[in-house]
Amino acid sequence: MLEMETKLAALKARLAEISDLDHAAAVLGWDQATYMPPGGAEARGRHLATLAKLSQEKFIDPAVGKLLDDLRSYEESLPYDSDEASLIRVTRRDYERAIKVPPEFVGRFSAHGAASYQAWTEARPTNNFARLRPLLEKTLDLSREMANFFPGYEHIADPLIGFADYGMKAASVRALFAELRERTVPIVQAITSQAPAEDACLKKHYPDAGQMAVSELIIKRLGYDYKRGRMDKTHHPFTTEFSIGDVRITTRVQENWLGDCLFSAIHEAGHAMYEQGVDKAYEATPLGSGTSAGVHEAQSRLWENVIGRSRGFWEYFYPELQKTFPEQLEDVSLETFYRAVNKVERSLIRADADEVTYNLHIMLRFDFELQMLEGKLAVKDLPEAWHERFQADFGLRAPDDRDGVLQDVHWFAGLIGGVFQGYTLGNVLGAQFYAAALEAHPEIPDDMWQGKFDTLHAWLIENIYRHGRKYTAEELVQRITGDPISIEPYIHYLREKYGELYEI
Amino acid sequence: MLEMETKLAALKARLAEISDLDHAAAVLGWDQATYMPPGGAEARGRHLATLAKLSQEKFIDPAVGKLLDDLRSYEESLPYDSDEASLIRVTRRDYERAIKVPPEFVGRFSAHGAASYQAWTEARPTNNFARLRPLLEKTLDLSREMANFFPGYEHIADPLIGFADYGMKAASVRALFAELRERTVPIVQAITSQAPAEDACLKKHYPDAGQMAVSELIIKRLGYDYKRGRMDKTHHPFTTEFSIGDVRITTRVQENWLGDCLFSAIHEAGHAMYEQGVDKAYEATPLGSGTSAGVHEAQSRLWENVIGRSRGFWEYFYPELQKTFPEQLEDVSLETFYRAVNKVERSLIRADADEVTYNLHIMLRFDFELQMLEGKLAVKDLPEAWHERFQADFGLRAPDDRDGVLQDVHWFAGLIGGVFQGYTLGNVLGAQFYAAALEAHPEIPDDMWQGKFDTLHAWLIENIYRHGRKYTAEELVQRITGDPISIEPYIHYLREKYGELYEI
Repeated sequence: MLEMETKLAALKARLAEISDLDHAAAVLGWDQATYMPPGGAEARGRHLATLAKLSQEKFIDPAVGKLLDDLRSYEESLPYDSDEASLIRVTRRDYERAIKVPPEFVGRFSAHGAASYQAWTEARPTNNFARLRPLLEKTLDLSREMANFFPGYEHIADPLIGFADYGMKAASVRALFAELRERTVPIVQAITSQAPAEDACLKKHYPDAGQMAVSELIIKRLGYDYKRGRMDKTHHPFTTEFSIGDVRITTRVQENWLGDCLFSAIHEAGHAMYEQGVDKAYEATPLGSGTSAGVHEAQSRLWENVIGRSRGFWEYFYPELQKTFPEQLEDVSLETFYRAVNKVERSLIRADADEVTYNLHIMLRFDFELQMLEGKLAVKDLPEAWHERFQADFGLRAPDDRDGVLQDVHWFAGLIGGVFQGYTLGNVLGAQFYAAALEAHPEIPDDMWQGKFDTLHAWLIENIYRHGRKYTAEELVQRITGDPISIEPYIHYLREKYGELYEI
Repeated sequence: MLEMETKLAALKARLAEISDLDHAAAVLGWDQATYMPPGGAEARGRHLATLAKLSQEKFIDPAVGKLLDDLRSYEESLPYDSDEASLIRVTRRDYERAIKVPPEFVGRFSAHGAASYQAWTEARPTNNFARLRPLLEKTLDLSREMANFFPGYEHIADPLIGFADYGMKAASVRALFAELRERTVPIVQAITSQAPAEDACLKKHYPDAGQMAVSELIIKRLGYDYKRGRMDKTHHPFTTEFSIGDVRITTRVQENWLGDCLFSAIHEAGHAMYEQGVDKAYEATPLGSGTSAGVHEAQSRLWENVIGRSRGFWEYFYPELQKTFPEQLEDVSLETFYRAVNKVERSLIRADADEVTYNLHIMLRFDFELQMLEGKLAVKDLPEAWHERFQADFGLRAPDDRDGVLQDVHWFAGLIGGVFQGYTLGNVLGAQFYAAALEAHPEIPDDMWQGKFDTLHAWLIENIYRHGRKYTAEELVQRITGDPISIEPYIHYLREKYGELYEI
C-alpha cells in the first residue's frame, strides 16, 4: 500500500501542476473580461493558447496513464466514494477524454476563443454580426473538429454536451426538453393571456454605485465570502475560480434597469458559493470544482430565482433596497416590487427572462446548436433564423442582432455545442434539490423572512458543494432525492409560485 | 541561409512559449498586488512557482543550447546590431545564465517571493518586523544560494547586480557611488543649512478621486498610451508588462499628501513608456523589454524629476491642478508650488525623497545588501542598523520600522542584492540621456511650457525605447553620448537647478 500511496502522491503532484496552469489561464481570462486594455488582446490570445497547450501536454503524458493503470487495483480496493478512489476515477475519466485531443488543437482552439471573445466585446455594441461571422464560422469548424476527436457518437453534439454535463446526450436532453416544453407552454399561455404585471418601478434611474453596493450587501448576507472572492464588472457576467480561496464573480450594470446587476450578482454568487464550498482537500486536483454545468446552474438559478425572487427574501431585503434608493422606491409597495421581479412575459433577452419563459430561450439555442453542428444551419443564416424562430416561439422580433443572436457571449467565446443545456438542467435540478432541502429543513422559507440563509447554505454545502466532482450529476441527484432527474418538482414549483401570482 | 532561418524560427517559437509563461506570471503578480482577495494568496504562490519552474525548464532545454550553437556562425555573419544577431546574442547571454539555475530552485524562489510579498502587505501597516524576519532570513539564504550558482565572482552580490544591471559589479557600483556621494553631500549640506522650502500646500486634504484623475490626465499628456495600458492602485507602485500592447502601471494615494500619487504615476509612466516604445518586432522575444534596471530608472526618474518637477512642466500643468483642487490651491502661487515639489530635506521615505538627497537613501540600502550577503549584517540586526545608519546619514530616526526598514517592498518581494543600485544609476544615466536630447533638440524645455512633450518622447523612442534589450546600458550610453557612464551631467543638472532655487 505504501507503494500505492507514493504513486498517488506522484499523480497528485502532476495534477497540481496542471491545475496551476489551468488556474493561471483562468486569471488571464478574468483579466481579459474585466480590466485588460484593448491593446492587450492580441498577445493575450497567445498567452492563453500556450497555457492551454502546455496543460494538455502535461496531462496526456503517458506517465499519467501509467500511474492511472498502476493505481487501478488500489482504486478497486477502496470504497467508491472515498476521496482517493474518487480522485483516481475522475482523473481517469478526464484523462481518457484528454488523450483524444492533440495539444496543438487545444492551443489553436483556445487562441481562437480569446480572439473571438475580444471581437464580440467590440462588435456586439455596434450590432456588427458581419464582423463576427467569419469568427463564428471558424468556431463551428473547430467545434465540429473537437467533436470528431470522439468518434462513435450518436449525435455530433454528444461529446460537447458530455464535456459540460457528463452522462447527457443530445437525445436525452431533447427528450427532457420536449417534456418540459409540453408542460411549460400552457403555463406561459395562461399567464400571458392575463394583464401583465407592472414593472415600471425597475425601470427608473438607478445609479451604478448604489446597484453595486446593494448587490454586494445581499450576496454577502447569502453567504458569498468576500475574503475569498470579489465582484467586478464585465460585458457578460461569469464566475471564475483560481483556487478554493479565490472564487470571483462579475456583474454588469444598466442604470435604467434594476434587474440586471442585482440578479446577475445573485446568480453568479450562487455559482461562486458552490466553488467556495468544495472540500479544501480537493484543491489543485480534478475533484476541486463543481461537477457539471447543470449542477452548477442549479446553484446559481436556485439562489437567483427560488430564493432571490421569493416573497420571504424581499420581505427581508426590500427595506435595505429602499434605503439605498429612497427616491425611486419610497412609493413602491413590497407587493408591487415582488410582482415586478416576477413579471412573466415574452421578452428578448435570455439573461433577463423570467423563470417561466426562460427555458424557451434555452431550447431555441440548444436546437440551433444541434442544427449548426449537423450542418443544417449555416452561420450566415443564423441571424435571420434567430428572428424567425423567435417570432414563432415568442411572437417577437428583436430590433437588431445585438438583442438577437449577439446577446449571449457563449458561442462567441469559442464553442458551439453543449454550452446552453446546463441552464435548463439547472432549473430542473435546482427544484429537485430545493425540494429535498425543504424536506430536511421545512423552516428554510420562514428563516428567509429574518434574513437567515445559512440553514439552506449549510445543507447545500453538506449535500452538494463539498463533494466537488466526486459524484456525477446523476449520482448526486440520486443520492439526494432517491430519484433520477425529473421535471416534476420544477413544474410543481412553477405552478405553486405562479398560481398564487396569476390565474393558471 | 534558409536552414539558418528555419533554425531561427524554431528558436523564436520556443522563446515565444517561454515569454508567454513569463507574461502569464506577470499577470498573476499584477493581480496579486492589485485585486486579489486575501484567500487567494496561498494558491497564488503555487501558481507562480509552477509558471516560473516551467519557464525555466523550457528555457534550459538542451535543444535551445543546440539551436544557439548552430546559429553562432549565422550570428557572426550578420551585423552586430541587426535584429537577428542581437536576438541570438541576447538569448545566448540569458541562456548561459539560466542553465546554471535548477528549475526546482526557480520554483521555490518564486513561491517564497509571493508568500513574502503577501506577508509584507499585511505586516508593514502594523509595523510587524518580527513576522517578516524569518521570511527575510529565508530570502537572504535564497539570495545567497542564487548567487552561488555563479561561482567565480569577485563579490557575492555581483551575479545579482548583473541580473538587473548587466556589466555592473559591486566594485564598480561602489566606486560610482563613492564619487557621487563626495559630490552630493556638500550640495545637501549647503541647501539644508538654509531655511527649508514651504510645502504645506502639498499636505492639505486631497481626495483620492481628484488625485487619480489629475494623475491620469498628466501621464496621458506625457505620452503614456491608455489603449495599451491602465493604472490601478497598490501598496508599492510598480510597472508590469504583459506585451508591448499591455503595459500597466500602479500608484497609491495618500489623501493628506499630494506628492505620492502624482509623482508615483509619472515615475511609473516613465517606465511604461519605455516598454510601450519597444519595437513591436521584438514582441515575445528576449529583446522585447527594457535593457537594464538603470536604463529603466533613467526613464522613470527623467520623467518624474527632470520633467515632472521642472518649472516649464508646472507652468503648463499647474492651472489644471488648480482646476482639480480649487479650494486647496487657489491661494498657492505657481512659484510656491514649484518650490514645494522641489523641497530638499533630510527625510525618512526614499520614494518621497527629493532629487538631491535621494541617492543617499539608495547608498544606505545598497551597502546593507552587500553587508547582508557578505554575512556581516544579520537580518535580526537590520532594523536597528537601519536606524543607526539613518541617524548618521540623515540625522533622523524613523519612529518605527514601518517608515524604516519596512518601507520598501523590494527585499520583501524575495531578493536581497541588486535591487536598489538601478535607481541611482538611473538618476545618473537619465541626466546623460537628457543632456544628449537637449543637444539634439534645444527646444525641449520651451516646448514643455506649452504642454508639448512629444519631441522628447520621440527622441527617447528613437534612441532608447525602440531598441529594447538590443544594446546593453553601456552600449546605449556610449552610442548616445559618445562617453561611458559619468556623473558629470547629473551633478551639473543638480547644481544648475538647485543653484537657482538655493544658494549653493
